[in-house]
Amino acid sequence: MTAKRDGCVLCETSGGRLVFEAPQFRVIHAEEAGFPAFYRVIWQSHAAEFSDLSSAERAVCMEAVAIVEQCLRAHVSPAKINLAALGNMVAHLHWHVIARFDWDTRFPAPVWATAQRDRDAGREAGVAAALPAAEAAMIAALSKRTS
Amino acid sequence: MTAKRDGCVLCETSGGRLVFEAPQFRVIHAEEAGFPAFYRVIWQSHAAEFSDLSSAERAVCMEAVAIVEQCLRAHVSPAKINLAALGNMVAHLHWHVIARFDWDTRFPAPVWATAQRDRDAGREAGVAAALPAAEAAMIAALSKRTS
Repeated sequence: MTAKRDGCVLCETSGGRLVFEAPQFRVIHAEEAGFPAFYRVIWQSHAAEFSDLSSAERAVCMEAVAIVEQCLRAHVSPAKINLAALGNMVAHLHWHVIARFDWDTRFPAPVWATAQRDRDAGREAGVAAALPAAEAAMIAALSKRTS
Repeated sequence: MTAKRDGCVLCETSGGRLVFEAPQFRVIHAEEAGFPAFYRVIWQSHAAEFSDLSSAERAVCMEAVAIVEQCLRAHVSPAKINLAALGNMVAHLHWHVIARFDWDTRFPAPVWATAQRDRDAGREAGVAAALPAAEAAMIAALSKRTS
């Protein structure tokens, strides 16, 4: 079920702290400085582009993205959720699911833009403190979906 | 079917050159300097977040995104497709579908990062010349889906 490609970092490593794993996808927490609630939904098989998946696989993938998004909305109350599948550096399908806050270093610009303010360690810690509950909700909802 | 919000630019304007319109979404070509094959799939009703849509609506939305992606892959042979729903500035669900090339001003960084090389007018024109055929393919595939 999971076709691997030699030399692909997302075929050979988890890509971050594993939160949930299903046969077709996994959810990881990414360590991205200044963005405490940054998750990725990574397709298990090596696929470069979203349209390399079948329609049914795309639905599985995006329902996982939606669940991660919903749990972040419920538990960390972001100003906005940002979703992206870029893959210019690592062409193995992974969806960034990022909770954005009006006090984060780039808001309202994308996280890949130049910083426009300093980090707020106190607020970042507040978000981080809510992640265990957010992740418990993700695991519960994703388990129900994939069982 | 299409709930509008006063003052929302994507409720009140097309948001770009209209390529295709269905009851639930529209596809536009965006004028973004240096990125000739930059499209957006815009949800017709005002919804801020992807997870504000129902599961069935998300499937409709993402199959439209996949069709735009497939037609760009077939007609402009990009190095990579980039997909993103950010909405920090305009919180009305819209998916960026961007054909990226190894010669574009930001590659392999996201289009929102700092430019790392000059524009290549000749290559941009070559991509632009392929867009009518790409858009005809989008219209044909999207019409079949939504008829």
